[in-house]
Amino acid sequence: MSPSTSPSSPWHMAQRAARLNPSVIREILKLTELPGVLSLAGGLPAADTFPVEAMREATARVLTEQPQAALQYAASEGYGPLREWVAERLREQGMTHVKAEQVLMTTGSQQGLDLIAKVMVDAGAPVAVETPTYLGALQAFTPFEPIFAGVASDGQGALPEAIARLPHDAPGTRFMYVLPNFQNPTGRVMPEARRQAVVKAAQTAGIPLVEDNPYGDLWFDEAPPAPLAARWAEGVAYLGSFSKVLAPGLRLGYVVAPPALAPKLLQAKQAADLHTPGFNQRIVYEVVKDGFLERHIPTIRAQYKAQRDVMAEALREAMPAGTEWTQPEGGMFFWLRLPAGCRAMDLLPKAVAAGVAFVPGEPFYAHQPDPRTLRLSFVTLRPDEIRQAVAALGRVVHQALEDTLQAGTP
Amino acid sequence: MSPSTSPSSPWHMAQRAARLNPSVIREILKLTELPGVLSLAGGLPAADTFPVEAMREATARVLTEQPQAALQYAASEGYGPLREWVAERLREQGMTHVKAEQVLMTTGSQQGLDLIAKVMVDAGAPVAVETPTYLGALQAFTPFEPIFAGVASDGQGALPEAIARLPHDAPGTRFMYVLPNFQNPTGRVMPEARRQAVVKAAQTAGIPLVEDNPYGDLWFDEAPPAPLAARWAEGVAYLGSFSKVLAPGLRLGYVVAPPALAPKLLQAKQAADLHTPGFNQRIVYEVVKDGFLERHIPTIRAQYKAQRDVMAEALREAMPAGTEWTQPEGGMFFWLRLPAGCRAMDLLPKAVAAGVAFVPGEPFYAHQPDPRTLRLSFVTLRPDEIRQAVAALGRVVHQALEDTLQAGTP
Repeated sequence: MSPSTSPSSPWHMAQRAARLNPSVIREILKLTELPGVLSLAGGLPAADTFPVEAMREATARVLTEQPQAALQYAASEGYGPLREWVAERLREQGMTHVKAEQVLMTTGSQQGLDLIAKVMVDAGAPVAVETPTYLGALQAFTPFEPIFAGVASDGQGALPEAIARLPHDAPGTRFMYVLPNFQNPTGRVMPEARRQAVVKAAQTAGIPLVEDNPYGDLWFDEAPPAPLAARWAEGVAYLGSFSKVLAPGLRLGYVVAPPALAPKLLQAKQAADLHTPGFNQRIVYEVVKDGFLERHIPTIRAQYKAQRDVMAEALREAMPAGTEWTQPEGGMFFWLRLPAGCRAMDLLPKAVAAGVAFVPGEPFYAHQPDPRTLRLSFVTLRPDEIRQAVAALGRVVHQALEDTLQAGTP
Repeated sequence: MSPSTSPSSPWHMAQRAARLNPSVIREILKLTELPGVLSLAGGLPAADTFPVEAMREATARVLTEQPQAALQYAASEGYGPLREWVAERLREQGMTHVKAEQVLMTTGSQQGLDLIAKVMVDAGAPVAVETPTYLGALQAFTPFEPIFAGVASDGQGALPEAIARLPHDAPGTRFMYVLPNFQNPTGRVMPEARRQAVVKAAQTAGIPLVEDNPYGDLWFDEAPPAPLAARWAEGVAYLGSFSKVLAPGLRLGYVVAPPALAPKLLQAKQAADLHTPGFNQRIVYEVVKDGFLERHIPTIRAQYKAQRDVMAEALREAMPAGTEWTQPEGGMFFWLRLPAGCRAMDLLPKAVAAGVAFVPGEPFYAHQPDPRTLRLSFVTLRPDEIRQAVAALGRVVHQALEDTLQAGTP
């Protein structure tokens, strides 16, 4: 019985509440807490990359030099010096137009997705997403009841000709959400020519872009091309995060919004939680202000690249013929397509029973999921654990294929 | 020109965005940053009550004993031991039914208001609020486009007979928002008999209650009666906060939701920001776990009571005849009603020019504001500053009355 119709409950929920459902990822993260399960599922950064000593020093400085300001209510926009630092860093990365006033500090970049949807999405309005796309973005947008338009995508990201086919008569598609660097879940990178074509198609269609870039710093051999936001200042809202280069438990991200959007986002931010913890913002500023990330990020890259190589080798050894993947050039994930006849969702309980967890690909699709897909994180476990986990997964897939063959035998 | 119709902008905003407007409180907080302005405006706790030394020790412990867990992604529900601690404390305060599983940690209790509205409010649905009510709650609910129903209130809070008149045929009024202890902005406390009558009226009408209790610990002579949530477990969602008893810059609050509501709130929380910073939750748990608040809160009470007395005396000396107020028995605010002919909004720029800031009462009303009202915080400034600020305000009001008289003279 739904809570909203229970005779004993006075709570009559909003229509949107029916769209909120238990998250597959949450349920899977619970599985990974079972003893003896090696998890390739969660997108958890390697905890040994967290700069604990730098955090300790920065925290002590904040609580010695500015304790009362750090612990008091603060401006909804965020901590001024950190906003300046973010703007300067983005200007260096090609977004030459960015001013500190456009930087809104958020409680993780996930909150940026919530605020953008709150300001932009009416019930029934089209919102475009890549195929597949980040599950957490679908979850953030869903409460505002959009109609998702899946944009056909290939190994380089969204197809420009598919953007041209999106609803674009005003108000049309409210925005297209795009993750150009080491996409979650596929790991793919949008190359320079595709970036140009995507921006041009979006401009022609009058569809603004929401560009999410949590993984851009995690490249292994070559930095990705400049952000889409560097090419269309007034048409792209850009989201960044400290979760993957410092630590996710601080919950610190930011949105850089064009002037047409920024004031409304700020008001939505204030209504949502007044402001992101000033304590955390000041600690992070103390950590990063003197070039710490320029020394720290290369160590993360080296570690993740080595783990990527370990997983690549383990996959080649363990997975049956017909399994497809592309080696990621950065980020945190391998995206696999299992041989015909396999359903990743059906394999998950068997894999957990065999001591390994992954995320099935289905929830990453707005429509028509490919049931053969799944996502593996190569950054959470140590190399020996990665080898062990992938070997176990390989055995589960081989067994499933054999079972399928036997079931097909008269 | 509205951003949504600007020909140069591709951003076509949601209808709700038109309801988001620059916050009066935000704009006023900016005024208070002007040099030479003594601010009685913001609801800022006295910064010298922040337990910096305890925070420093707790932070060092967290970063020594559990750094990786504190800095990693965490469960959307919140940190288990802190949820247990909150549940235990609420059981001691009369909410004997509360289980830790019902406690959802939020990014300040402001986020609890946002999540409840997200789950409960359809566009056009009635939401009831006291008259006047907390401005930040109006701001949190507004993006979900409710129709506000103002419940007539007196010095003891909402009138039960007004609750009976609210729309209550299903789905009817989605909830009534109520702040029974030292209400923001009026400072009033709901006495025991009124609590019983309000809960009975809400039960009869089938209207659930959202009970906000940020100030309940800040009583001066006598603890307030048990929460409404202690009287109607399945019909009251209860919000609490560490902002007024520890420090607001941590952004840490919680919602205790009845089982009918809790799962949807959790899903909305995950969509909004994944989880509240685990770092902050573990620090606060380290601070409070061994009875720190039992020693700390009495010192806040003593300090605020002394400041309340200073402001009461200063008001008696400075304000012209015909100014009305009730002495608050706790919390942070005096609520004044100026003599006939005065408009608080018109006085604000004159007051700021004279070196003192306050919050006009108008934005605290969902409908039909009383333009003669204003709110003064007695906790932010030191006693000598309070005397100076109230004296300056008194001169501004006297001058305004004289100007009104002269304007009325032929």
